[in-house]
Amino acid sequence: MADSTFDVAGIGNAIVDVLAHSDDAQLAALGLSKGVMTLIDAAQADAIYAKMAPGIECSGGSVANSIAGIAGLGGKAAYVGKVKDDQLGQVFRHDLRAQGVHFDTKAAIDGASTARCLVLVTPDAQRTMQTYLGACIELGPDDIDPSVIAASQVTYLEGYLWDPPQAKAAFRKAAKIAHDAGRKVALSLSDPFCVERHRAEFLELLADHVDIVFANESEISSLYQTDFDSAVRQVRGHCDIAAITRSELGSVVISGDAVVVQGAEPVSAVIDTTGAGDLYAAGFLYGLTQGRDLGTCARLGGLCAAEIIGHVGARPEANLAELVAKTSF
Amino acid sequence: MADSTFDVAGIGNAIVDVLAHSDDAQLAALGLSKGVMTLIDAAQADAIYAKMAPGIECSGGSVANSIAGIAGLGGKAAYVGKVKDDQLGQVFRHDLRAQGVHFDTKAAIDGASTARCLVLVTPDAQRTMQTYLGACIELGPDDIDPSVIAASQVTYLEGYLWDPPQAKAAFRKAAKIAHDAGRKVALSLSDPFCVERHRAEFLELLADHVDIVFANESEISSLYQTDFDSAVRQVRGHCDIAAITRSELGSVVISGDAVVVQGAEPVSAVIDTTGAGDLYAAGFLYGLTQGRDLGTCARLGGLCAAEIIGHVGARPEANLAELVAKTSF
Repeated sequence: MADSTFDVAGIGNAIVDVLAHSDDAQLAALGLSKGVMTLIDAAQADAIYAKMAPGIECSGGSVANSIAGIAGLGGKAAYVGKVKDDQLGQVFRHDLRAQGVHFDTKAAIDGASTARCLVLVTPDAQRTMQTYLGACIELGPDDIDPSVIAASQVTYLEGYLWDPPQAKAAFRKAAKIAHDAGRKVALSLSDPFCVERHRAEFLELLADHVDIVFANESEISSLYQTDFDSAVRQVRGHCDIAAITRSELGSVVISGDAVVVQGAEPVSAVIDTTGAGDLYAAGFLYGLTQGRDLGTCARLGGLCAAEIIGHVGARPEANLAELVAKTSF
Repeated sequence: MADSTFDVAGIGNAIVDVLAHSDDAQLAALGLSKGVMTLIDAAQADAIYAKMAPGIECSGGSVANSIAGIAGLGGKAAYVGKVKDDQLGQVFRHDLRAQGVHFDTKAAIDGASTARCLVLVTPDAQRTMQTYLGACIELGPDDIDPSVIAASQVTYLEGYLWDPPQAKAAFRKAAKIAHDAGRKVALSLSDPFCVERHRAEFLELLADHVDIVFANESEISSLYQTDFDSAVRQVRGHCDIAAITRSELGSVVISGDAVVVQGAEPVSAVIDTTGAGDLYAAGFLYGLTQGRDLGTCARLGGLCAAEIIGHVGARPEANLAELVAKTSF
């Protein structure tokens, strides 16, 4: 690839997570579906929050988590996402910049507050997410700085960007800038219900605009409305690289005729799976932009995912660069 | 004691903690003294925060932590403290109410933001705290609801209340209401430098207004400006009960002629000592208001302290009531 200022530029919904312990009975009482992300409005957010246990606040957002991970690994990373200029927006900006991420998207001055994701963590370490998009609905094409995108080896976008109204225009603008500059575009399918909401457009994106796709089994199966093996066959013709995560089974990477199967990293205790997919993408994209082979990329992804599920929250606690240095690759 | 609506009413600085990993080199670069609490203004808070690693936000405040612990143990608890009506203030209020705590102090509508404590956690699990008091400076005697204090077996106050200007008047008002109603007044000495700042008044409080005092070795030694053994002899004549924590040595409780020495609970890994003293007081006061003997109170304190130092943050993650039920008392 050409010289680059950034390894990866990420574009996503800028969200602060509110994490609290929960149980199946509470999920049932609140009418929530375990393991998925549901969009809620401000009134629903207040109503659910009022019933949640005491929590902790932690910067989140799917691609933002990945970008924090890439920076933590030693990669050069940039982020585009919309917060409001409020306390949680300041927290979100601080946490990315403190990780060394270039993050200059202007904060919204009025309108909705910084987005929040209410994350209910059950004893089985599953996370059930209710997202109030707040200021994310203000993200639009004007927030895309062409010089940042053109200077990044990979531009990484989340499927969740299809939920706020103007973000998809930002997405398409960024993808065009990236490709015009000879760069790669990566996409996370985000969530099976996100795929349900936007299937037709996601299929078109994969066919025409996306070079690298990240998905888990239910997302890729939902996209092609078929079983896992058939979905894998179909995605092979659509993207240069498809990295499919399979929870405790590790991941499968498909690229042209190559198939790489990578087992999961051992984890002593799974505490909270929030961010597992995001950190897998972080490790994978870091490896890819460092010129590593696909098997190493998959292993780096698994190593970062293993770190994040060992504690509460979706931003790494450990020094990921040291973690990688300790592991033989 | 007479019938009571609440076991313990707490009055303290209502603070949201911002916790981040740090190291000795950063403490030195920032000119911070390890292990103590320093008061900072808004500009200092911004400057230190800008240099801190990515963090998590978690409700804190010394007595608020204790009150959350008492409620988590199954006790009936109330809290008085001043937040602003902003996002972090809403987080603070939510986290106490979600724990079942009665908390009705009016939020400040304008003026300074909700108080923040920047907590730098070093690899030795020590915490170094920089507190911006923010809206806490608005707490005054009008915030004391006599009906709540008179209906609480114990009113528990923190030495830190001597830092904001009007809070000491609230403190004295509450102590008088409590004693007039035949209730007990408990005080935490909070921090050795807090004792330095307010020694003369603290000595007067202990002699005339406080029935139960919580301190660690350096606080009680600082109060009497002498060694630990001499300090223990002096406090005996000043309070009905003095509960002195000694880190890994456990605690010593002095009451009249009785001295109870309690070893520390075993802890598999000490992660973050933030809140250890607060949770000791929670367990102790819970035991006391349930009519348990001093040895049991000390053990309950040690059990709760052991829970809090096993993870990041000063609010319990485990179900304390279940933890106690599993332990033989």
